[in-house]
Amino acid sequence: MTQMTRPSGRQYDQLRSVTLETGVAKHAEGSCLIKAGDTHVLCTASVETRVPPWLRNGGTGWVTAEYGMLPRSTSERMRRESSAGKQSGRTQEIQRLIGRSLRAVTDLAALGENQISLDCDVLQADGGTRTASITGAFVALSQAVDWMKAKKIVDANAVVIRDHVAAISCGIYKDEPVLDLDYAEDSNAIADANFVMTGSGALVEVQATAEERPFSQQDFSALMMLAEAGIQDLVVLQKQSLG
Amino acid sequence: MTQMTRPSGRQYDQLRSVTLETGVAKHAEGSCLIKAGDTHVLCTASVETRVPPWLRNGGTGWVTAEYGMLPRSTSERMRRESSAGKQSGRTQEIQRLIGRSLRAVTDLAALGENQISLDCDVLQADGGTRTASITGAFVALSQAVDWMKAKKIVDANAVVIRDHVAAISCGIYKDEPVLDLDYAEDSNAIADANFVMTGSGALVEVQATAEERPFSQQDFSALMMLAEAGIQDLVVLQKQSLG
Amino acid sequence: MTQMTRPSGRQYDQLRSVTLETGVAKHAEGSCLIKAGDTHVLCTASVETRVPPWLRNGGTGWVTAEYGMLPRSTSERMRRESSAGKQSGRTQEIQRLIGRSLRAVTDLAALGENQISLDCDVLQADGGTRTASITGAFVALSQAVDWMKAKKIVDANAVVIRDHVAAISCGIYKDEPVLDLDYAEDSNAIADANFVMTGSGALVEVQATAEERPFSQQDFSALMMLAEAGIQDLVVLQKQSLG
Amino acid sequence: MTQMTRPSGRQYDQLRSVTLETGVAKHAEGSCLIKAGDTHVLCTASVETRVPPWLRNGGTGWVTAEYGMLPRSTSERMRRESSAGKQSGRTQEIQRLIGRSLRAVTDLAALGENQISLDCDVLQADGGTRTASITGAFVALSQAVDWMKAKKIVDANAVVIRDHVAAISCGIYKDEPVLDLDYAEDSNAIADANFVMTGSGALVEVQATAEERPFSQQDFSALMMLAEAGIQDLVVLQKQSLG
Amino acid sequence: MTQMTRPSGRQYDQLRSVTLETGVAKHAEGSCLIKAGDTHVLCTASVETRVPPWLRNGGTGWVTAEYGMLPRSTSERMRRESSAGKQSGRTQEIQRLIGRSLRAVTDLAALGENQISLDCDVLQADGGTRTASITGAFVALSQAVDWMKAKKIVDANAVVIRDHVAAISCGIYKDEPVLDLDYAEDSNAIADANFVMTGSGALVEVQATAEERPFSQQDFSALMMLAEAGIQDLVVLQKQSLG
Amino acid sequence: MTQMTRPSGRQYDQLRSVTLETGVAKHAEGSCLIKAGDTHVLCTASVETRVPPWLRNGGTGWVTAEYGMLPRSTSERMRRESSAGKQSGRTQEIQRLIGRSLRAVTDLAALGENQISLDCDVLQADGGTRTASITGAFVALSQAVDWMKAKKIVDANAVVIRDHVAAISCGIYKDEPVLDLDYAEDSNAIADANFVMTGSGALVEVQATAEERPFSQQDFSALMMLAEAGIQDLVVLQKQSLG
Repeated sequence: MTQMTRPSGRQYDQLRSVTLETGVAKHAEGSCLIKAGDTHVLCTASVETRVPPWLRNGGTGWVTAEYGMLPRSTSERMRRESSAGKQSGRTQEIQRLIGRSLRAVTDLAALGENQISLDCDVLQADGGTRTASITGAFVALSQAVDWMKAKKIVDANAVVIRDHVAAISCGIYKDEPVLDLDYAEDSNAIADANFVMTGSGALVEVQATAEERPFSQQDFSALMMLAEAGIQDLVVLQKQSLG
Repeated sequence: MTQMTRPSGRQYDQLRSVTLETGVAKHAEGSCLIKAGDTHVLCTASVETRVPPWLRNGGTGWVTAEYGMLPRSTSERMRRESSAGKQSGRTQEIQRLIGRSLRAVTDLAALGENQISLDCDVLQADGGTRTASITGAFVALSQAVDWMKAKKIVDANAVVIRDHVAAISCGIYKDEPVLDLDYAEDSNAIADANFVMTGSGALVEVQATAEERPFSQQDFSALMMLAEAGIQDLVVLQKQSLG
Repeated sequence: MTQMTRPSGRQYDQLRSVTLETGVAKHAEGSCLIKAGDTHVLCTASVETRVPPWLRNGGTGWVTAEYGMLPRSTSERMRRESSAGKQSGRTQEIQRLIGRSLRAVTDLAALGENQISLDCDVLQADGGTRTASITGAFVALSQAVDWMKAKKIVDANAVVIRDHVAAISCGIYKDEPVLDLDYAEDSNAIADANFVMTGSGALVEVQATAEERPFSQQDFSALMMLAEAGIQDLVVLQKQSLG
Repeated sequence: MTQMTRPSGRQYDQLRSVTLETGVAKHAEGSCLIKAGDTHVLCTASVETRVPPWLRNGGTGWVTAEYGMLPRSTSERMRRESSAGKQSGRTQEIQRLIGRSLRAVTDLAALGENQISLDCDVLQADGGTRTASITGAFVALSQAVDWMKAKKIVDANAVVIRDHVAAISCGIYKDEPVLDLDYAEDSNAIADANFVMTGSGALVEVQATAEERPFSQQDFSALMMLAEAGIQDLVVLQKQSLG
Repeated sequence: MTQMTRPSGRQYDQLRSVTLETGVAKHAEGSCLIKAGDTHVLCTASVETRVPPWLRNGGTGWVTAEYGMLPRSTSERMRRESSAGKQSGRTQEIQRLIGRSLRAVTDLAALGENQISLDCDVLQADGGTRTASITGAFVALSQAVDWMKAKKIVDANAVVIRDHVAAISCGIYKDEPVLDLDYAEDSNAIADANFVMTGSGALVEVQATAEERPFSQQDFSALMMLAEAGIQDLVVLQKQSLG
Repeated sequence: MTQMTRPSGRQYDQLRSVTLETGVAKHAEGSCLIKAGDTHVLCTASVETRVPPWLRNGGTGWVTAEYGMLPRSTSERMRRESSAGKQSGRTQEIQRLIGRSLRAVTDLAALGENQISLDCDVLQADGGTRTASITGAFVALSQAVDWMKAKKIVDANAVVIRDHVAAISCGIYKDEPVLDLDYAEDSNAIADANFVMTGSGALVEVQATAEERPFSQQDFSALMMLAEAGIQDLVVLQKQSLG
C-alpha cells in the first residue's frame, strides 16, 4: 500500500472505534445501541407470538426488519418519511437487506410460529448505517431469542441462531481499497461494497457498486479480504456484548 | 392532601427526575436529550435560511416542529408511521402543539426570513412525551438561535427568544390532583391536562380532557397551580443546561 | 367592561343567534342542522350494530365523529381533502375532539356492542365550527339513541346519555374577554379558547391557545366564566330542539 | 304505454319536483341548491384569477368541477373519501362529466385566464345526483360569470356562456322507458342513461349502460326523446332561477 | 358523403386493419394481443376460484378488468401510475367500462363462485385503446371460460358467455361521421363516441361526448349506424381467433 | 462438474436463447424487446431536453430507469402496483439498479442537460427479469443517443456511451454453480447473484444473496467466472442488434 491518507487518519484496514451497548430500551425484548465512530444506530427487537398471514399454520417463524433515519441524523435535515407518506426506495432496500441477513443465520422452524421485528433507527449518521444496523441488530435478535427461551416460548435447548452475522463496508478510495468507509470517504469513493458474513466466514450478502467508474475483479477481491478481517473483529465485539 | 400513593412513590406535587443534555447531535444547530424519568426525547433544531412559500418576501421567519415515536419506544411495538404511509391524528396534534408553543415565545420578525425546524423523537416513552418535547425543544431552539447569531444570520443583539417556555402534564389520579403523570398514572387518570407556560408564568396552551368522567372547575384550578410550580422548576433546569 | 365594540355589534357576553333544526337528513338515524350566525354545520348520526375490531366481544359500544368542510364553506376555496388524499392535521384534531366530547357523556356499556358515527359537515363557516359541531352532534346523537330504543337495539330504560354536552369558544379580543368568536374576531384574537361542558356545568375539554401573546391565569378564568354561561344557554336550546 | 306503475306514482315522462335556490352560500361567487325530489345537491362556483399550469400564458380560461357525497347522504353511511385517502372511480368519473358538460357551453377564450371551479356536494341522495349536479352547477356558473362581469374581470359584453346546459337520467324500468329515475327505480332498471343537452336541444354527453341485459336501439331512441323533453323543462327552471 | 379525406386514407366507414392473436401469455388462462392499426393492447385473463368479499356465499361469480398504459405507449412519455401513487380518473373510468361490458354478456351465476380478471395493457397507443381493450378482452375471457370447463371448474355444458361483445369508436371529423378514429382524428374530432354492442346487435354501452361543439341527434344516429357495422366485422374476427 | 441436470436441460454454463429486437415501439426514441427464454421485457428509451430540478444549470444530463411487471406476467396474477398505490420495495430496488448500471457507462457531461428515461416492462417472467432489463435497456439507450446525435441535441462526435453494459444472474443450484437461472432454478437456489459488467470485463454491480444457506468465497468466485463469460456473449448480441 502507498502513502494514501484517509480523512480520519485511519489505516486502510482499520475499523472505526465500535461499541455495542445493550439494555438501552426499557420496553424491548432485545436492544443494542451500536456506535461505529459517529454513526449511531439504536436497534431493538420486538417479539410477537404470531406470524404474518402467509406463514400461518406452517409451523415456522419470521424475522423482519425496519430501518429509519431521524430527520437530523444527517448533515442536512432530511424530510421525515412519515410526513412524505412513504418510505424511500433506499429505505426499503436497506430494511430488506437487514431482514435477509438476519434470517440467513436463524432457524425459522426452531423459532416456532413467532415473529421477531428488528427496528434499526439511525440517531446519527456518518456512513455505514446499513452495515452497522446489521451488526447491532444481530445482538438485539440474540437477546430476544434468549428472552423467548427464558419465557419458554421456544425450547431452551433449540439452536435458533445458527451462527453470528455481521457486516461492514469497503470501498476504493483514491484508487486504494479501504475498510469501513465513513461519510467523507463514501461520498468520494470510486466504488463501494457492503459485505455481510457469518462468524465462520461464509458469505450472506454482497453488494458492490461502481460509483465513479467500473472496477476490476482484482479490486473486488481486495475488498472482500478487507471485509473478512473486519467482520471477524465485529463478531468478537458481538460476543463480548452478549456476555 | 390525603394518603393517596402514586405508583412511583412520588409526592403529589413532585416532578420525575429530569435531565437536559445538550450537544447530543453532531450535525444539528441545536440539540437536547431530555429524560423525564423513563421518558426520553431527542430534540434537534435545524436552521434553514429560507421560509415556507406562504411567508416568502414577508420579512419574518418561522418555527415549526415534527414529532415521532420510535416503533419500540412503547411497551407494545407500534407500527412505523412511514410504513403506514401517514402520520396519525395524535402525531399531528402533538407536533402542531409543539410548534405553536415555541412560536409563542419567538419574535418571528427578529428571526428574519429563516426557519428553524424542531424534531422531537421519542426514544423511550413513559407518559408525558409531548410536554417533555416542548421543554427539550426550547433548549435546542435557544441553541440554534445562538448559532445563528454567531454565524451573523441574525443580529447578535436581537431579542429573538422573548421568554422561556416549558410544559408539564397534570391529572386527577385516584380523585386527587397530581403533577407530572407517568404512564401508569396517565392510563388510569380521571382527567388529564397539559399546560404550557412561559418563564414569567403566563399561559401559552392549556389542554384538559375528561378521561373517565367530567371534572369540576375547582379540580381544574388545582391542576393549574401544580403545573405552574412544576414549570418554574423546569425553567430553572433549562437555564442550567443553556449555561 | 369598557366600550370595546365587537365587529358584529354584540355584547361581550352575547352568543350569536343559534338555531338547531332536526330531521334534516332523510336517511340518518339522527340529524341536526346547527346555525350559529353564519356558521352552518350539518350533523348526522349513523347507527351500526357492530363495533371496531379492538372492541369486539367486550360488551361495550363506541361513539366516533368525523368532520369536514365543504370546499367553498370558506371565504377562499379550500382544497377538497379527498382530492388532496388525506385529512389535514386540523381536521383530525377536531374530529378527535368531537368524539371525545360526546363519549364523555355517553355510557358506552349501556350502548351495547353498537357504534354511533357522527358526521359534522360544515356547509358555511364563520368561526366556531368545532364548537358548533359538538353542540349540534349532541342533538343528532340523542336522536339516534332514541331511535335505537324504539328499535329495541338498546333497552328503552337504559340511561345511555348521562348528561347534555355543548361547547363554545371564547377569546381575548382587543384586550377583553368575549364570548363566541366569529371569524372577524377569531382571526384577530390575542388568545382563544374552546370549552366543552356538561349540562351540569362540569368540564369535558378545555383548549386554550395564545395567538398573539401569552395570557394570564386571570384572563383564562374570565373566559371560563363566559363559556359556562354561554353553554348553559346552548343546553336550553338543545332541550327545546329535542322536544 | 301500458299501465306500469312507478314507485313514486309519477307518469313515465314526469320529472320529480325540482327547485333551484340561489344565494345559498355566503362566500361563493355563485351558488345553487338544487332539489330534485329527495336528491339535494349544493353547487358553488369559485372564481380564481389564474389557470392551471398547462394553460398559463395561453389566453384562455378553464372550468372544472369536483363532486362529493356527504357520508350520510345515502341510506347506508358511506366511508368519507378524505378518510379513505382517495376519490373513488365513480367520483372521478362524475366530476369529469360535470366539468366537460359545463365547458361545452362556455367560451373559454372569452373567460380570459381565469378559472371557475364548481363544487357539487350531495347533501341527500335519491338517484340522479350527477345529472342534478350538472343542472345546478350551470346556475352557479352563470352567476359567477355575472359576478366577473360586474367586477370587470371579463368584459361585460362578452358571450361567455353560449347556451344553457342541463341533464337528466332515463331508464328502462319494468320494460318501459321512464324519465328521471329515483333510487328505487335506478337500482332495478334494465338499463339507464344520462343525457346532457343544451338549451337548443343539441347533445353534449350521452352515457347509456345495460344493467340487467343489453337493450335495443329502439329503446335507446325512446330514452333520448324523453330526455329531450325533460331537459327543456329544466332549462325553463334554470332561466327562472337566474331571473 | 363528400370528399373528406381521412389522415390514414381510409373510407369513412372503414376499420383499421385488425388482428387478434391468442396464446401470447404463457402463464394466463386466456390471452389476446389485439392490434388495431398502431394501437396494440395485450389482454390477459386470470382465473381465481374465489370472489370478492361482498359476493361470498352468494353462489355467483365476478368478472372484472384493469387497464394500464405503458409509459411510452404514447407519443410523449406518460408518468407511470404506480410511481404517481394512484390511477388517474381516466384509467378508472376505462377499466370500469371494460368490466361492465364483459359482465353484460356473462352469466355470473353459471360462473359459480369464481372470478375472472381481465388485464388490458396498452403496449402502443394510436387512439381507440378502450374499445380495442373490450374487443380483445372478450377473446381472453372466452378462452378462460373454456379453460375452466376443461378443468371442470364450471360445467362443460353451461352457457357462461351468452353472446359476443365488441366495441368501436366513431366520431365527427371535419363535419362528417367516421368509423374507428385513430389518434390524428381523435384529437381533432368535433365529437366522439364509443359503442359497445353484442353479436346480436344490442347495445351494452354508449358514451358520446361533444369535444368541440354540441352535436345533433341526427349526427348521433349516423355514428350509431357506423358502429353497428364495424362491430359486426369485429365479431367475425373474434370468432375466427377463437377457432 | 458432476452430472447435475438442470430443469431446462441446459449446460451449467449455458445461457438461455436470447433475442434482442429493436424498433418495437413506434413512439420511443429507442426500443428493444429482449427475450431470454420465456422472460420477455419491453425496454423503451424516452428523451427529454431537460433534467431533474437538482441537476439544473449544472451542465450535465441524467439517465434514469423505471421497471414494472404486467399483472399476469407471472404464474400467479400479481396486484397491479398502480392499484396498490405504490411500488414495492423490490420494484424500487430493481429500477435503482438499472439506472445505476446504465449511468456507469454513460458520460453524463457529454449528454448535456438532457434526460433519458428507460422503461423496462416485463411482459412475461421466467426468472432473470432485472438482468434482462439491463441488457435490453442498454440497446434502447444506445439508440436514443444515436437519435439525439441525428437531431443534433448532442454532438455527433461525442462519446456519450463509453462502453457496453450487460447483466446476467448466476446461482448455486443443487450445490453447483450455474449460469442464467430460470424461475424453476431461481426458486430453489442455495444462493443467487446478479452481475453487471462492461464490455471490457469490468464490474459495475454485484449483488449476491444467500437464499438457503451462506456460501463460500470459492463458490462466489465460480459464479463470477460464469457471469463474465455469459456477459461477453450478451455484449456480442447487443452489438449485432445495434447493427
